[in-house]
Amino acid sequence: MLTVNEQARLAREAATELATATRAAKDNALRAMADALLSRTPEILEANAADVAAAREGGLTDAIIDRLTLTDGRVAGMADALRQMAALPDPVGEVVRGSTLPNGLELRQIRVPFGVVGIVYEGRPNVTVDAAGICLKSGNAALLRGSSSAAKSNAALTAVLRDAIAGAGLPADAVQLLDATTRDSVKELMRARGLVDVLIPRGGASLIKAVVEESTVPVIETGVGNCHVYVDAAADLDKALAVTLNSKTQRLSTCNTAESLLVHADVADAFLPRMLAAFADAGVTVHGDDRVRSYSDAVVPATDEDFGTEYLSADISAAVVDSLPAAVQHIRRYGSQHTEAIITESVGAAREFTARVDAAAVMVNASTRFTDGGEFGFGAEIGISTQKLHARGPMGLPELTSTKYVVTGEGHVRS
Amino acid sequence: MLTVNEQARLAREAATELATATRAAKDNALRAMADALLSRTPEILEANAADVAAAREGGLTDAIIDRLTLTDGRVAGMADALRQMAALPDPVGEVVRGSTLPNGLELRQIRVPFGVVGIVYEGRPNVTVDAAGICLKSGNAALLRGSSSAAKSNAALTAVLRDAIAGAGLPADAVQLLDATTRDSVKELMRARGLVDVLIPRGGASLIKAVVEESTVPVIETGVGNCHVYVDAAADLDKALAVTLNSKTQRLSTCNTAESLLVHADVADAFLPRMLAAFADAGVTVHGDDRVRSYSDAVVPATDEDFGTEYLSADISAAVVDSLPAAVQHIRRYGSQHTEAIITESVGAAREFTARVDAAAVMVNASTRFTDGGEFGFGAEIGISTQKLHARGPMGLPELTSTKYVVTGEGHVRS
Repeated sequence: MLTVNEQARLAREAATELATATRAAKDNALRAMADALLSRTPEILEANAADVAAAREGGLTDAIIDRLTLTDGRVAGMADALRQMAALPDPVGEVVRGSTLPNGLELRQIRVPFGVVGIVYEGRPNVTVDAAGICLKSGNAALLRGSSSAAKSNAALTAVLRDAIAGAGLPADAVQLLDATTRDSVKELMRARGLVDVLIPRGGASLIKAVVEESTVPVIETGVGNCHVYVDAAADLDKALAVTLNSKTQRLSTCNTAESLLVHADVADAFLPRMLAAFADAGVTVHGDDRVRSYSDAVVPATDEDFGTEYLSADISAAVVDSLPAAVQHIRRYGSQHTEAIITESVGAAREFTARVDAAAVMVNASTRFTDGGEFGFGAEIGISTQKLHARGPMGLPELTSTKYVVTGEGHVRS
Repeated sequence: MLTVNEQARLAREAATELATATRAAKDNALRAMADALLSRTPEILEANAADVAAAREGGLTDAIIDRLTLTDGRVAGMADALRQMAALPDPVGEVVRGSTLPNGLELRQIRVPFGVVGIVYEGRPNVTVDAAGICLKSGNAALLRGSSSAAKSNAALTAVLRDAIAGAGLPADAVQLLDATTRDSVKELMRARGLVDVLIPRGGASLIKAVVEESTVPVIETGVGNCHVYVDAAADLDKALAVTLNSKTQRLSTCNTAESLLVHADVADAFLPRMLAAFADAGVTVHGDDRVRSYSDAVVPATDEDFGTEYLSADISAAVVDSLPAAVQHIRRYGSQHTEAIITESVGAAREFTARVDAAAVMVNASTRFTDGGEFGFGAEIGISTQKLHARGPMGLPELTSTKYVVTGEGHVRS
């Protein structure tokens, strides 16, 4: 078995070739990858069955086993995603900025691939296919380190993808799977500065924290979302009810799910009884401060820790605040700079909230669940960045590129 | 004396205020800073004289003492730079991308400040003023850690700037100087993740390497430039001579100075005798391979290490290559991805070189010395990034910002 450094060296060679591959060549490869997934579904499902059997033996939860399990339909879904990527514009070669300088030099800033992208992830096998596809489309080689529970599925998927890439005339080493049976492969990947250009951890808070602290390779942090909905004094309470319920319950376990509700004191009497009833109907437990608890015995007391918690479950923290600045202050203290929403009909309140709240996405009268590459129209998403450097919010194809200045003269010298 | 963490907390408070300051308020502060530098020049020069005296006692070189020394003219130059920043457009608030989504949601991606920027630098005291100004203009609070040899000068400059900022109604803590007498302040700064948003090291290779490896705060790497000039078979040799000489000798100690010359074998006979004579006239020592040495006894033998060296002196390495791909291969092996130049009249050669060379800037028939924020028309520069994440090449005001998505609906929920 190759070491991570050896794999990274092969990836770098492949990346050099990919960097100048035409869009047509890359799209052909993506379509060949989709075809291969369909024609070789049986061997993928066989490998997956072994992972699923081991997961059952290991006593993993039904939810995890469901996420791990592949079917004909799910493999077809992966193939569809690759075809959709083929239809997206190529970010590479885009002229981001350009001008002719006073001395006649022609300046162009052009999008180029990063080179080698490392992705460490837990979760569904479809991430393997998505990440391979989005990296290839953006001209990057991918080093994929999935979870050990999906090791056989990921190996089968990667084998199919690599064959298809080679068949389409591009280097198979553009997609490589790292050893998922040991933590050493993550450690080696984090120290491969110079060989790996960027590292994207996708998964739980502890994984992300470890990568951020230990990696010498530049990292794009994804993830934790302690998202708030603030119902302003000038809110339309029907919209507030619908948006809050959707933000919390449309899907419980995603980073853009709302985890905390803040209600302006002026509308608490009119809003909270309705909202608490709707949460009760939806099976959501509300962890409230004293003022929220005064509206219903079903509300359990919120601790300071509750307000800082990303539940990822049918729970939400809730507090009454006396002003918009108090809501902003609360969000600054407890939020994770992912997605924050205000419900208001006031232009002034919307303007103040969007200016003062520091987050990747700020929603006005819209569900927090909209922070998503697909919803934003990016066509493909490698994750949602919660850092400020390079990319912030949903990351599509352009976020997987860097730039290069090309300057053309006719013998220009500096005086 | 405050700890770095305490200073960073004050910076974060200041940054919150700066983030929503209008362009007018920031430009007023920049002009007030310029005025204060002029009116308080005597106390700045007095502090500087103490630094210079200590440097002489410490036996520092004349070159270092010259860089350290302030005069009325140099202080006036700093004030001018601040006035020029006031005249530049404000990057904050720029809508980078915007659209109305199919469901009617209005999506805008807006430039916002990073928040708190840490800058570690060696060298001239004018960096203190430049960095303070560019950070303030881009809405960021600055934590400045200069060299110990300039400690008194930097303290005087910072005191003047802080008074002016406060007088203009913005928070003085937007500009803070860290203790330069101990390495601990750099260490603390590198561990202040969550308080400091980005760290920019400017200085020698060892400083940059240490920060890159040890920092948990996201870093923008600046610096090392082992820049090449490649004279192609299709080069205009007069242009080649002028551009190579300018790239090497216009200023010896900058990161965009050429450190290596590659000459296509087809033009070596016609070009190298002229080039070597010109270098001899300019006092440049050429470290050449055997083929280069065959043209002049003055050429000293180049080791493998020479080709990887950023001399920052009147030295250049030189080799003859048999093809453009061989030149690209050499640059890939020895280059530092800063600036690479080709001299050619061939469109095909220029196209191949600019596509295949992986660097922040690629020059065609132009001096490597043009890789510079001022030359590129950015108006202000905080450094030249040699990494691929976030910013690559000269960094102006937009490179000191992140973005935020603002999404406006009318009660939109996700289905």
